[in-house]
Order: sequence, then C-alpha cells, then structure tokens
Amino acid sequence: MLIIGELINTSRKAINEAVEKRDAGYIQKIAREQVEAGANYVDVNCGTMVYNEVETMEWLVNTIQEATEAPLCIDSPNPKALEAGLALCKYGQPMINSISDEKERFEAVLPLILKYKTKIVALLMDDTGMPETGDDRFRVAGSLYAKLTGAGVPEGDIYFDPLVKPVSSVDKAGLEVLESIRLIKERYPNVHFTCGLSNVSYGLPNRIYLNSLFVVQTMTVGMDGYILNPTDKRMMGVIYASQVLLGQDSYCMGYLTAYRKGLYE
Amino acid sequence: MLIIGELINTSRKAINEAVEKRDAGYIQKIAREQVEAGANYVDVNCGTMVYNEVETMEWLVNTIQEATEAPLCIDSPNPKALEAGLALCKYGQPMINSISDEKERFEAVLPLILKYKTKIVALLMDDTGMPETGDDRFRVAGSLYAKLTGAGVPEGDIYFDPLVKPVSSVDKAGLEVLESIRLIKERYPNVHFTCGLSNVSYGLPNRIYLNSLFVVQTMTVGMDGYILNPTDKRMMGVIYASQVLLGQDSYCMGYLTAYRKGLYE
Repeated sequence: MLIIGELINTSRKAINEAVEKRDAGYIQKIAREQVEAGANYVDVNCGTMVYNEVETMEWLVNTIQEATEAPLCIDSPNPKALEAGLALCKYGQPMINSISDEKERFEAVLPLILKYKTKIVALLMDDTGMPETGDDRFRVAGSLYAKLTGAGVPEGDIYFDPLVKPVSSVDKAGLEVLESIRLIKERYPNVHFTCGLSNVSYGLPNRIYLNSLFVVQTMTVGMDGYILNPTDKRMMGVIYASQVLLGQDSYCMGYLTAYRKGLYE
Repeated sequence: MLIIGELINTSRKAINEAVEKRDAGYIQKIAREQVEAGANYVDVNCGTMVYNEVETMEWLVNTIQEATEAPLCIDSPNPKALEAGLALCKYGQPMINSISDEKERFEAVLPLILKYKTKIVALLMDDTGMPETGDDRFRVAGSLYAKLTGAGVPEGDIYFDPLVKPVSSVDKAGLEVLESIRLIKERYPNVHFTCGLSNVSYGLPNRIYLNSLFVVQTMTVGMDGYILNPTDKRMMGVIYASQVLLGQDSYCMGYLTAYRKGLYE
C-alpha cells in the first residue's frame, strides 16, 4: 500500500499563504505530520503559482527535504516544474504525478521518468478525452503499458489512475472504475493503481464517508495506492481495517497497532 | 439486496425471556421495528428451546404474522421445527435457513424446500467439514447447485453462505471468502449470496466497525444478502452508501433518503 500525502498543494489556502510568505516552518510541519501519520510519499504541488511555479517547486522540495527523508511525489502538469523538482530530490525513488496517453504530455514527461528513474502516476486518458467505461480505460492502459515498458520503465513503477467521476452525475461511475481495475489487473498483474478520492462523492451529502467506503471497494479489487490526507484518522483507520480483512496484515499487527494509537476513537 | 433481520433469536437474552413468558407484544414490536428499518425477511430462530422448539416455532410464526406481513426466514437445524414454521407461513415466499451438503441434513431439508417453494440458505460445507479455501467452497457450491437445481429448485432461490471464519485466527479468512464469491459468481451468475457477519472480527477490537467494512468488501464482489440487525443505523447506512457507489441506486435516491432519515447522524 502506497500512501501519498496530498496536503502540500498551493490550491489549499493555508499552504498558499505559507508558500507566499516562504514560511518554511509551516511547510515542514505539514510534511512531518503526514509522514508520521503514515504517508510513504509526500506530494508537492504548486500548480497554482503560474508565474513562478519552477522557483516555488525548487523552494518547496528543498524545504521539505530539510524536515523529512520521505521520497517526494512531484506533481505538476508543467514539465519544467517537474524537472526542477526532480533534479533536487535526494531521498529514495521520486514519483511523478502524472503522465497520460495524450501525445504532447506523454512525450514531454517520458524523458523525465527515464532520466530520474521515477515511479509514475499514469492517468487513463488520451487525446480523445476522459474515459467513460471500463473498456475505455482498459484500452488506454494497454497503450500506456506498451509505450512505458517498451521505453524501459519497470512495470512495478507504473501506477494507473482510472480517473474517478461523480456517481451523482453518472450512476455507474464507481462501478466502471472497479470494473476497469479488475480488467487491467487481470491482464497486467504487476502494475499498481492509485486515485484521488474526492470526485466520486461530488454533489452528495456526507462526502468523507462515501470517499472512505470507496477506498474499501477499490482496495477489494486491488487498488494499492491513494493520494489522500494521511492525518485524517477515519481514512487511515479504514485502510488498516481493510488490510486486516483482506489478509494483508500478518497477525493483525497493523490493525492492532492502529487501534492502540487511537485511530478508532 | 436481501436484508434478513436477525433479532428474533432465542439465543438473545431479551428474546428468550419474552418467549418464555409468551410476551407477544415484545416479539411483535421487534418484528415491526426490523421491517420498518428495512428488513425484507424476518428470521425466526428458537433453536435454544431444545425441549419444545416445535411448539415455540409455531407460537413465534403466528405471533409475528399478527404484526407484519413480511415473509419469514425459518431458521433451525431441526427439520421438524422447520416444517412446523413453514406450514404456518402466510405471506410471500418463505425462506429456510439452512441446508448444507452434509448428506443427512441435505436429505431432510430438500423435501421442505420443494413442498413450500422456499428460498434457501445453502451453507458451503459437506461431511468433510468446514471449508478452508475458495476452491473448497467452489467445489461444495457446484455439488449443491447440481443437486438443488436438479431437484427443481430455481437457481435464483439459492443463497450460498460461504461460512466466514475469524481473520484473527486465519489471516486469509476474509480474502478466501471474497475469492470464493468471485469464483462461484463467475460460474453461476444467477445464484445469490448471504452470510452472517460477526465471525470475521472475532477476537479483535472494534468489531462492529470491522463487520461493516466486511459488508462493503463482500458487496463489492457480489454478495447480495445479509443476516444482520437492521435497526443498526451504521450497518444500514453502509449498505445504502455502498449501493450508491456500486451503481445500484438510480439517481442516488436510496442514499439521499437514508441521509434525510438521519442514518448518517
């Protein structure tokens, strides 16, 4: 299970303010808290800084690495910002968020994956747009798998993101994601999966609750990575409890430790 | 989704006392509450009454049917008690809990299924004992499916119960159940599944929480019946929320209704 802590993102107001002020202490506190809460990777996203994203990315990467040795997930649609962040990563194997099968994006990001030997979040979309069905996603996954592994990316470094849509607008949106994970996992058993969680519940009440159940459902069919807030006890509790029920937790040690730490209070 | 309300069971202290006193009002209150909370069937189990189970079953069935027209799930290991209850069922299609592939039990219960045209809970065990792996369950399911449908039982009336064991004693116990549902559903897409929920979490803290997540996991692979306490808001809330995420709830109406009823308070 790969937990990518999502909190260091300038689309969040408190992070935006801290970045504007170059408040290293606050950024480092958020980085440390996420790692202590169970994050394996720390996401770094300053995509809202359109005029100085590259410089901001460099400051963030250096600042975070003074606080933690956790590897970073460099997150941007801008290849220049990706490269600026990757070049400074010191600890572990960095991750890129994200590539897709859109021609221009693919060609810009692939060299960075190879140069920095990163893990890669691969969005299941191409130039025809967002996927609708499980079959759409399976087709794009096949194309991305062939191109990435053909270029030398190890299949275990690939994290497919099925791109979750709201069930409030498309009844079967959740089901299609589950179905696509099943299909892709059967064909490519060594790839991984990740997704963001908030879209699925858009427009419905009680969203955090729905998001946590969608984690249980996607874990049941084989998803093994999430971009989320690891300091959310409910969400982390759901992950540990799901792991014990799925036989991924020898002697229930992870679950019992989480229980003793008060994750289920 | 079939919800079988489990509360009328003389192994529960309050029910035992009410039955001993022939307190019809209390039994009828519990029956009504379960149906109002969403139970499709009311389970009737007086298996602890070893000396007068037949007479008690008759009293319970008559008493409950004065309070609700919900169909009943007649629940006993004793074929005489099953027949006594079934003979009095007036509303809808009754259900029997349970048959298995143990020779003696199978031969005693099959004639009751056929005579009363019941739905049937079929435990995935035979004379070799409790199943271990998904393959064990698949084998027993194949044998039961062949015998039951061969005798004329419609496949849509069969509810396989995979017999859940505690993950605290066998790490993969939950996973094996999920795997067996997948295998059986692929081969026999028109049968149903049901299970009790408390075993999976035996020996671990926070059991109701684990049980509710196991409902989410089993629903994700196709389980569509549960024997549970329908007045437990948390459990029913989990079921409605899972249905909306699984695309089984048109326009999210079931989930929104449950939300307005306060199931997620």
